[in-house]
This record gives sequence, C-alpha cells and structure tokens, in this order.
Amino acid sequence: MEIRRIAEVLRNGQPDQSLTIQGWVRTKRELKDFAFMEVNDGSSMANLQVVLNPDLSDYETILKRLNTGSSVEVTGILVESLGKGQRIEVKASSVTVYGEADANYPLQKKRHSFEFLRTISHLRSRTNTLGAVFRVRNACSNAIHQFFQERGFLWVHTPIITASDCEGAGELFSVTNLDLKNIPKTDNQAVDYTQDFFGRPTYLTVSGQLEAEIMAMAFRDVYTFGPTFRAENSNTSRHLAEFWMVEPEMAFCDLKGDMDLAEAFLKHVFKSVLENCPEDLEFFNKRIDNNVLATADNIINNQFERITYTDAIALLEKTDRKFEYAVSWGVDLQSEHERYLAEELFKKPVIVTDYPVEIKAFYMRLNDDQKTVAAMDVLAPRIGEIIGGAQREERLDILEKRIQNQGMNPEDLWWYLDLRRYGTVPHAGFGLGFERLVQFMTGMGNIRDVIPFPRTPLSAEF
Amino acid sequence: MEIRRIAEVLRNGQPDQSLTIQGWVRTKRELKDFAFMEVNDGSSMANLQVVLNPDLSDYETILKRLNTGSSVEVTGILVESLGKGQRIEVKASSVTVYGEADANYPLQKKRHSFEFLRTISHLRSRTNTLGAVFRVRNACSNAIHQFFQERGFLWVHTPIITASDCEGAGELFSVTNLDLKNIPKTDNQAVDYTQDFFGRPTYLTVSGQLEAEIMAMAFRDVYTFGPTFRAENSNTSRHLAEFWMVEPEMAFCDLKGDMDLAEAFLKHVFKSVLENCPEDLEFFNKRIDNNVLATADNIINNQFERITYTDAIALLEKTDRKFEYAVSWGVDLQSEHERYLAEELFKKPVIVTDYPVEIKAFYMRLNDDQKTVAAMDVLAPRIGEIIGGAQREERLDILEKRIQNQGMNPEDLWWYLDLRRYGTVPHAGFGLGFERLVQFMTGMGNIRDVIPFPRTPLSAEF
Repeated sequence: MEIRRIAEVLRNGQPDQSLTIQGWVRTKRELKDFAFMEVNDGSSMANLQVVLNPDLSDYETILKRLNTGSSVEVTGILVESLGKGQRIEVKASSVTVYGEADANYPLQKKRHSFEFLRTISHLRSRTNTLGAVFRVRNACSNAIHQFFQERGFLWVHTPIITASDCEGAGELFSVTNLDLKNIPKTDNQAVDYTQDFFGRPTYLTVSGQLEAEIMAMAFRDVYTFGPTFRAENSNTSRHLAEFWMVEPEMAFCDLKGDMDLAEAFLKHVFKSVLENCPEDLEFFNKRIDNNVLATADNIINNQFERITYTDAIALLEKTDRKFEYAVSWGVDLQSEHERYLAEELFKKPVIVTDYPVEIKAFYMRLNDDQKTVAAMDVLAPRIGEIIGGAQREERLDILEKRIQNQGMNPEDLWWYLDLRRYGTVPHAGFGLGFERLVQFMTGMGNIRDVIPFPRTPLSAEF
Repeated sequence: MEIRRIAEVLRNGQPDQSLTIQGWVRTKRELKDFAFMEVNDGSSMANLQVVLNPDLSDYETILKRLNTGSSVEVTGILVESLGKGQRIEVKASSVTVYGEADANYPLQKKRHSFEFLRTISHLRSRTNTLGAVFRVRNACSNAIHQFFQERGFLWVHTPIITASDCEGAGELFSVTNLDLKNIPKTDNQAVDYTQDFFGRPTYLTVSGQLEAEIMAMAFRDVYTFGPTFRAENSNTSRHLAEFWMVEPEMAFCDLKGDMDLAEAFLKHVFKSVLENCPEDLEFFNKRIDNNVLATADNIINNQFERITYTDAIALLEKTDRKFEYAVSWGVDLQSEHERYLAEELFKKPVIVTDYPVEIKAFYMRLNDDQKTVAAMDVLAPRIGEIIGGAQREERLDILEKRIQNQGMNPEDLWWYLDLRRYGTVPHAGFGLGFERLVQFMTGMGNIRDVIPFPRTPLSAEF
C-alpha cells in the first residue's frame, strides 16, 4: 500500500483512494459505536482524522493503546468527512501501534507555556506552534539557498574555529583541547598554547565575512549560511550564544548594489515562505501575532525607502515624538529610533545609509566626506534592524590606517590586506541574523523558540 | 551596458553583442600591433579572451597595469575568434583597471604545489584547480539540499555547542569562556564549571544524529548539513578537525529504506554535479585523476550490491588476495578489505549490512540473532567507506542495556531515552562526510584541498 504524507493527502486526497499513513496520535475520542483519532506526521499543521470502527480486528485493545503521543500506522480508505473541520477522513481497515505514550507523556492536550516547552525541547516540535516554526524555518532556509543559487552565488563554508579575534573581542568562546584542570604554562605563567591543538589561541567565529571576502575575490558572488557565536552574557528574549547567519559578499559591487540585493532578498524570502507555508503563517497570524501577514505584505509590496543617516537624524530631531535616548548627529540609532522611522514615519522598510565612521566597523568604506562610511542598515516595521551591510574598504592605504586607528595590528590581518594588494575591487555585502528573520516571519516573541536547541547562558541541554 | 558573467558569455554569447565583463586577469600577451588578455570571474574554469587594440584610450598605460592578478572591467563587442581554443572573444572598447597586482603576487603563471597553495589559502581559489573544487563543492551542496527538499525532508539545524560527550570521548574540543590563564577551581581542585558560560563542561559536536532523531520523531524525515569536529591529532591527508557532515534521519524507516535512500542520494548528487559542472569534472579527469568520470558513471549506472557483513567476511576469507590485516568474523573491516570488495570483486558500490554488535555504536538496532546490529556501510570503488548508517534501536529496554554495557550512564541520555518512552517508531539514518564526497568526485588527493580553510593540528590560519 502506498504510504502518503498527511499534508499531501489533505491537499490531494480523493474519496475511495486506499492508502497508508504513519504518524503520531494527537487526540482520540471514543463514542459509543466508534472512535475518532487525529494523526499528525509533521508534514502539516493540520491533522488527518481517522475513523475507527468496532469491526477492526483487536478494536478494544488497540483503542486502549492509542493515547496522545503514541505512534501508529493506519491503512484504510479515504471518505468524505461528514463532520466539521475537514474535507476528508480515513476509514481505517487496519491499525498498527508502534509505540505507546502513557499518562506521563508531557504533551497532553492542555496548553503549555513556551517556557515549559523549552524544558522539553526534545518533544516540543510535536506541538502545533513549534511544528509550524520549524517548517517555516526550513522553508526560509530553502528560500535563501534558492535566491542565491539562482543568481549564481556560491555557498561557501567559512571556518567555525578561527584564530582571529579582531571582531567581537571579549565576547568570544575559546576552543581548546588542553586539559582545563591542568592548563600547561610557560616559564612566565602564560598559557602554553604550543601544547594546544592548533598551537595558538582559537575561538568560535563571530562572522564569516572576512573569509567570504576572500572567496568573493575569486568567485565574485558568494554567500555564507552557517552558525556563528557570541559569548555575551545576555539572558534576554533577543540573544542566543549560537545562532545562524547569512552573509552574501559581492565583488564589483557598491553600496547601491548591496541595497538592491538586500531588498530583493527579503522580498523573495517572504514571498517564498508565504507560498510554501500558507497554513503555518495563517496560524501565526491568528494565534501568535496578528501582524504576521500584514508584515509580509508590507515587505513584499513596498519599495524600500532609502535615506542617509544624516537625513534620518534630521527627521528624528524634527519630530515631536519623545524618545528615551536623545538624538543628534554622531550617535548610534537605538531600536526606538529605528522603529519610529520604519513603523511610524515611512510605514515600510527603510534603508539608512552612510553612518558616521566612528560608530561603524573598520572594514567599511570611507566616504569622500571623510566623516561617514558606506554602511547600510535595513530597518523593518516591528523589528527594527534586520540587515546590516556595507561596501568594504578596498583601498589598501586607507584600510591600514583604519585598522591602526582601532588599536589593532595590521600584521594580524595580513591576508585580509593582501586582498587589497592583489587585484582589489569595490565589493560589498551584508549580514542577516537568521533567527531574527524567522522571528520576524512568525511573530514568535522569544528567539529561543525559533531554533531547535537554543544555547544561552547556563543552558546547553540536549 | 549589461554586465554578464563569463560562464554565461562563453555558453550563449553571439557575435556583435555589446557587453561588459568584470574579473581578474589570468594572463596577458603583448604582440606588436595589439595585445590579448585572458579574464576569469570565477564563474567557470575557462577564461574569456579579450583583444586590446592600440586605438583604446590610454592603451600604453593600461597595458602596463594589466598584470596577472589585476582586476578589470572590460566593455566591448563579441566577435568570432580566429585563434584556437575559443569560439568567441571580446574586442575591447574600454578597459578600467580597478586594482593592480605587482610582481610579488604569488600566483604568477608557473605551476604551484598544493602544499604551497595551502599557505596562501586566501588566494588559492583564484587558481584553476581550487576554483573548480569550490564550484563543485557548491554544486554538490546544492544537489544535497535539492535531493532532500524534493522528498519533503526538513533541514534541521542541530547544535554545534553540546554538553553531551557520549560519542567521540577523548576527541572533543572544549568550548569555554573561562580565562585559560586562571581557571577557577572548586575546593577540591576540580574546574569550577559553575563559573563557565553554560555552567557545565561543553564541547564542539561530533555529530548531529541524536538531535536529528528528536526532530525525526516530530517531522518524520529530516536532515542535518553542517560543521562537525574531531580533536584527533592526525596529520594525514584524510583528516580534518572541522568538517561538514550530512545526516538524514527518517522515522517509520528500516534498514532497507535507509539503504534505498543512500543509494538514491549518491546517484542524485553525482548526476546533478555532472550536469552542472561538466567542464570542471572533465578538468579533474584530465589533470588530477583519470578515474573521475568513470567513477561517477559507476555510481550512477550500477545497482549497488547489498551483502551482509557475514557474507562479506566469507568472501574475504575465500579470496587468494593477501591483506595486511587478517580477516575473521568479528573484526572491523579495514580500508583494504572495503576496497577489495567494491573495486575488485563487485566493481561497483557495495552496501555491507548487519555488523557484529561489538564493533558498532550503542544506538544501532540489535538484530534478532543477538549478535549483529542493523548497520550498513556504503563502500565505493577507490575510496572505501563513503556512508555509514543504521536502523536505530527504538526499544527502550534494549537501548538502556546497550548504554549501560558501554559504561555510559542512561541518565545522561534521559531525553534520548524519552524518544523511546513516548511514541517510539522504527527509524534509521546515515552519515556522510561531505569533504570525502567532494574528494571522491574530484579525485583530489588531500582533504585539505576541498575545504576553503582547513583546520588541522597546529593550523588555523585565515
């Protein structure tokens, strides 16, 4: 008998078709003359209803074993459903129970808080909400690869373990195979890294950008999509110690090209997820955040506003709106400012460009005014900054000065500088925190609920 | 003017088309009345030939700047090429040099050893061979996602940082944000992990399988594709400390389904890369290993042989072939045995199943004979083991015993055991080392040359 996925059956199934389905029992209702159960196999939010009649062999025994959480295989025939809420249902001709789930199974019918569900992250994907989150997460991942591959970008795998500490100092995880109980020391009591695996201090990467620039200088258009890390001791709903980033990098590209890509990227990803997970997004819109569909529509159907930082500051200074943090040229924009611009003033995504050199990273290209750099942040209604990018400094002499001005040693970045010594080109790229994008799409309030096994201070279970 | 990628121009370009291309100069030849240069933009192995005539503005100056490695933008018109080796070429009407490359540029025309190129991993992607490797690596990644997504598998992101040390003990990298110079200790001189970021010892993952099993129990079919780690001090051409793994996991699946998937997977990936990178594979076949195309053909067009370990041992005992390691029932197969079976005896991929319980991992399903487990290894001509998989032990009592027999504490795996307590199902999966697959496809002899920035003992540069 053909084994079919439930999402496909609910979409295409026709009365009188014979089929086998497999999945987990969500609920069971016993009536006098027969019983119903709802089966889910993770392919969709919706369950498939199965009707069990007493003429089924071992009816009574099977019924007792079919508790919430048990795993079953059902063979039967599709029939039109007379009940409300489903078009078709399965009339079972045979049922196999693979595994039971007793009364201790933590996911009984009642509602559970997301906080509680995090303590059972090995089971929470079996709930409606987390199931929908991880289907959307997959659809979003897939849309990202599709977007770049269609445009000829290569997916490049930049290293996780890195000896470079030039970004994110102080928030780095160390990687070592030294015995922590007994760290070898040199004569002057420093750590003897010659005995460590890599012969030097190594860390978990905070970004693949610098290595992506290397690859862009050979392949022109590349992107990373992989895990990155911050040892930031922030126990908030917005921080993870381990999260996934997407970082495209393009040679022969300036800030305008970078903005064009970022806008096309967001539109594509939202469109693709809407197409592939319509039921899941409707669920989020109904149950989690009733702005979810409007937000997607806002991204897809508006041309993003583009303004300079200088103009943004002028707009923020002009408004009567009161902010917690005062605004003046030179300060970094706070979330409240970003949301005011996107949500209230323009009511659509806004790309702010050309930030003061003092508040941006050393590798961003110095503008001719010598005061600003060719950076851009994409601000979206309801979430604030979703993408941060820049044209990179491709001029060797200026880059060397910027590195020195930040108190770093250019020799540590010899290979990064070599890219400017040999065949340098204008190039640009951006970074996007993947979990923040999934939060944005689903309306989920806590970032820990959009990654299967969140890593946060004092928590690395599963 | 439309900017076009060189691969596309070489494929579709027609005489009289105007266009702009951008890339890096590979070679330049100055003749008496004009000059040629070959430009590459990473989109293909082949360069585009550009003809420079003296009527070009600043001809003499530009010519001096156009050294190997310099970056250029060329606008011109396509013309039929009268020379050998190319169908079309560009007659330049304007040339912009973005960045020069002087005589110190390490990639001058002469050949370089792969060993030398590893010392300049920030430049080596600009060579023919490494360029081809990373195009194939991308095509292979893309084929993997496509294979699984088309079949309804979810890509799941399993954690990199893990508190579980139940696999790969002794070969784990520690992750910490403690100060290595000054590790805090408890009263009895143990490491005080309460002060560490996660409040306990944490490591870099060696496999996402156990977490993938969690996700398969909710979504049925899932796969991981991400970095994994081994702190193994092996300085060989086959080992990396950081490498990418692909690990599908399927609920309601037995060993036969697992084998079927593995076979379909390898065939799909080879076919897809052949279709998408034909020139690169021809290059490898000609210059690196003249078995590359025959190997792909062997994988794609043969039905894989399937034999039990017990039968494999009998075949190995029967042959006159001398082995370095003696064979008898109970020993693990060595590479020489695996290659004999695949390369010499069957002359095609062989899946060996049902290995002795003693030599396989605790989570593999015990067969009814109580002596073997439902494991499978896919052995391929020329490389040996390329995939290792198993049906997992889904029975709680047997799994608990196996864990205890290995000297591990079942309580450490409470969540893994919960999967067997609540709605357990037969399930299976496999693991594939991605870099070994890319080596296999390209014939590259050293695994360090198929990953952009290899991590090996004493080496974490870039």
